[in-house]
Amino acid sequence: MKLDSSGLQVLSREECLRLMASVPIGRIVFTDRALPAVQPVNFCLDGESIVIRTTIGSKLAAATRRAVVAFEVDEFAPELRAGWSVTAVGRARAVEDAGEMARLAALPLLPWAPGSRDHYIVVEAEQVSGRRITA
Amino acid sequence: MKLDSSGLQVLSREECLRLMASVPIGRIVFTDRALPAVQPVNFCLDGESIVIRTTIGSKLAAATRRAVVAFEVDEFAPELRAGWSVTAVGRARAVEDAGEMARLAALPLLPWAPGSRDHYIVVEAEQVSGRRITA
Repeated sequence: MKLDSSGLQVLSREECLRLMASVPIGRIVFTDRALPAVQPVNFCLDGESIVIRTTIGSKLAAATRRAVVAFEVDEFAPELRAGWSVTAVGRARAVEDAGEMARLAALPLLPWAPGSRDHYIVVEAEQVSGRRITA
Repeated sequence: MKLDSSGLQVLSREECLRLMASVPIGRIVFTDRALPAVQPVNFCLDGESIVIRTTIGSKLAAATRRAVVAFEVDEFAPELRAGWSVTAVGRARAVEDAGEMARLAALPLLPWAPGSRDHYIVVEAEQVSGRRITA
């Protein structure tokens, strides 16, 4: 078991992707008017790509266009002081190809928020890192 | 009930701070070598300040020194497609005053991660925003 300098267990890329696929909500981290910004979103993992649905005019759509973003998922059990977190860093892009859009529309990804959310953002999980903390 | 452009309920500052105080884990969002970075931490709310314990040599301590950061907390019930999130944005500072350090040491804030974590970071919750989504 590999530990980092903080004594937390370092997770492999495979374990990170497996954990990422196990939760419905993640947090996309980006820059909005030069300030750090974060927004929870429901998502779906498509291979090693994170797929998010939003509205074309949303702040998220504008701020993540061709930007490098981070995407974080985690699960903690406070009563056990245990849990894990995984962060992917990669380039975000708006899906514009009709064929790709049709393929993504078939994913089990239903928007939670109201309104028409037919704009897809894909984040390629280029760098993936994860940690596990156990009591 | 005030709704935003996405149809989500907008929470008041008071409601945001109340919700923030109700969870033990948040995510600090910062910039690390020009890339967006995010790290879950356990924390304690001290008035309108977010208090985090870390180690003095940590990446988090270095990256958040005199930086503007975001701090996000949330709670979702996937089976209900409901939940809330709150984000604070403000300046982070390392606590250096011995009196303040002694006061913060008395907070109910025990580090989850191993190692000596006697370095305190305080984030002033200058801008606070929150949303609630209901099925």
